[in-house]
Amino acid sequence: MSESFDAVEIIAVKRDRHELTDPQIDWVVDAFTRGVVVPEQMSALAMAILLNGMNRREISRWTNAMIDSGERMDFSSLSWATADKHSTGGVGDKITLPLAPLVAACGIAVPQLSGRGLGHTGGTLDKLESIPGWRADLSNEEMMAQLEDVGAVICAAGPGLAPADKKLYALRDVTGTVEAIPLIASSIMSKKIAEGTGSLVLDVKVGTGAFMKSEAMARELAETMVALGTDAGVRTVALLTDMSTPLGLTAGNACEVAESVEVLAGGGPSDVVELTLALAREMLVAAGKADVDPADALASGAAMDVWRRMISAQGGDPDAALPTAKETHVVTASASGTLTRLDAMAVGVAAWRLGAGRSRPGEQVQAGAGVVMHAKPGDAVTAGQPLMTLHTDTPERFERAVAALEGGYDIGTSAMQPVPVVIDRIG
Amino acid sequence: MSESFDAVEIIAVKRDRHELTDPQIDWVVDAFTRGVVVPEQMSALAMAILLNGMNRREISRWTNAMIDSGERMDFSSLSWATADKHSTGGVGDKITLPLAPLVAACGIAVPQLSGRGLGHTGGTLDKLESIPGWRADLSNEEMMAQLEDVGAVICAAGPGLAPADKKLYALRDVTGTVEAIPLIASSIMSKKIAEGTGSLVLDVKVGTGAFMKSEAMARELAETMVALGTDAGVRTVALLTDMSTPLGLTAGNACEVAESVEVLAGGGPSDVVELTLALAREMLVAAGKADVDPADALASGAAMDVWRRMISAQGGDPDAALPTAKETHVVTASASGTLTRLDAMAVGVAAWRLGAGRSRPGEQVQAGAGVVMHAKPGDAVTAGQPLMTLHTDTPERFERAVAALEGGYDIGTSAMQPVPVVIDRIG
Repeated sequence: MSESFDAVEIIAVKRDRHELTDPQIDWVVDAFTRGVVVPEQMSALAMAILLNGMNRREISRWTNAMIDSGERMDFSSLSWATADKHSTGGVGDKITLPLAPLVAACGIAVPQLSGRGLGHTGGTLDKLESIPGWRADLSNEEMMAQLEDVGAVICAAGPGLAPADKKLYALRDVTGTVEAIPLIASSIMSKKIAEGTGSLVLDVKVGTGAFMKSEAMARELAETMVALGTDAGVRTVALLTDMSTPLGLTAGNACEVAESVEVLAGGGPSDVVELTLALAREMLVAAGKADVDPADALASGAAMDVWRRMISAQGGDPDAALPTAKETHVVTASASGTLTRLDAMAVGVAAWRLGAGRSRPGEQVQAGAGVVMHAKPGDAVTAGQPLMTLHTDTPERFERAVAALEGGYDIGTSAMQPVPVVIDRIG
Repeated sequence: MSESFDAVEIIAVKRDRHELTDPQIDWVVDAFTRGVVVPEQMSALAMAILLNGMNRREISRWTNAMIDSGERMDFSSLSWATADKHSTGGVGDKITLPLAPLVAACGIAVPQLSGRGLGHTGGTLDKLESIPGWRADLSNEEMMAQLEDVGAVICAAGPGLAPADKKLYALRDVTGTVEAIPLIASSIMSKKIAEGTGSLVLDVKVGTGAFMKSEAMARELAETMVALGTDAGVRTVALLTDMSTPLGLTAGNACEVAESVEVLAGGGPSDVVELTLALAREMLVAAGKADVDPADALASGAAMDVWRRMISAQGGDPDAALPTAKETHVVTASASGTLTRLDAMAVGVAAWRLGAGRSRPGEQVQAGAGVVMHAKPGDAVTAGQPLMTLHTDTPERFERAVAALEGGYDIGTSAMQPVPVVIDRIG
């Protein structure tokens, strides 16, 4: 840093609706990482960014400054081309589990750095940790070796990747400044660009169970991230996908692993299969394998083979029985007709309250907890039939989970068409 | 507090342009004072308030919550009615010094809790501390006794008055959130209402040397404060006054005391006399003494008598020689003509750089440092005549002070009318 700035002056620039210069952005991100800009200053700046916005240049520079706060990974020594996927998070979103081995089975390596769940959205690592023996923490060397050997790895991001983002995200989480598109986009993309993937497919969710409740907001986020990735030389595309209803028939940890294995075995719920294949096709096209049909790798069992090798490589036993919860409670249909709505947020909160999710970072989750659905929107139901089965080790949780589901579904008299999973493609 | 809230939810209310409820305001101010709401959360909320505003009810409740964080003083046991004045701060603004004894000489007690200077604006306590022996810190009992005995006291506010405001102001100062009218108004009025004065006259300054650069902003601040005072049962009126040029012919510490004594002796610059009398009349009217003319108390020497007793009561020697600076530097007129502009901010920054002001709380100031002006806008000047004399103990400061004055004045060829000091009256 050759220049030095004053934090209050930089806050005032954004407060007064002006543009931050490149050197101002470089300085403030670096100084925040070093502790020279204190948290109360960065949170005021984050609120000013949330309310007054940043333009493309500012977001791009902010992203680069966060990348420069840490290490960059480099997959150029691999014999594989690489593609990665990022989902903005939803309920029942286990897609990473079948997707990573499926794409690897098609010849493209998938270095999937994942996170843990918070609130009503589940975390990929929490789900995989329900497999006995499986571990999320790999060294960079272990990750590279597994990628070369198996072609797929799903593990925790190390502390060296974009430390500015880790510090800023923790601050935004307690200061009401998470919901800023420039900060969401730069947070996601700084990690993905630093990770060094050659191609990236973004699954931007929209609906009640998603972070973005409106399609306009989701579209703006998707367009911002595609531009950031493209500017950084990463072939990037985004799918806008529906999260008004949960994905598949399970929301939890072990139950989502089981459903993913069903998909890898050639079965599974149609929406999960559809989205897995759609994302796999985008990853293959982005990585230069447009001629390969991932449906073949599902049908042939090749994807399942990679799954077993991927789980084993990280200490997991792919044949071990998955944990189950001690107690169950059945929610039944109150009327006969068509299930016209099953709200993703209601199911997500119910699963969280059953013990599948956590309220703050570091909390333990229950491997067996969650919601298993017996009907999805469009299905006919009869009064008294099971709609959902709730699972938990701690039955005192049922009451609050049932309360979360109240008003979370509708049973109507007319038939309805299911909502398509993929709403649009951007990039 | 019977209810408990979540800081992030309260930040989100204001972030999303909604109104905070009374219980939310009570909780967040109290929880911030207790350290439950952490600084990074309050600074995000302050930025959201700055950008999205608060309505009258919210500002009033916020003010009350800050008052409730500490003690309330009570002057009802005095045999005097009370009136106080608050200035939003300017350059050469020594008005409190002649005003407090003048109003007391007219039969209304003045409990003036004052502050220290920061940046380009001077502080009343810093000025008075140039009088040998004078002390700013009084106990509540000493203050009450002096008020009853002398009728005027100018001292530091104790730590018990609106501690929430002290903590919040320190935070706003480092987070770019000072410039929020709801927060400025509630900060000033919480202290003045907690102090317990019966009447209050606000001197809201507008112009380059003032905090409010535009008349519209100054007017909004004045109206907000008058409404807050009135709602709290304090008879409150505001004068909008000019701060595009310094008040009087001095900006510093001891030099401003000397000029104040000139006014009390019946002389002094006309703008200082005019504003002192205008504010005194407002205070007398508000406190029920509309029939008394303060000009009489200046002419008779009654105000000077109270000044001497007031200074003596706080350990000062009203007859002692005031400190003078070791070094002087004369700035001369570069042309002949009429001085058409003398910028308050330029003079304020010059005085600050000469050592009369401080850059951060707690810094020492020089008693003898400052700027003595030899001409004011409207005066004829000839090339080479002294325009200003700069005073400091540390001559290496002259260079930066002279630089601050560059472009800070204009000499024209046409005559001009001086700008009136009092722009408007609100209340």
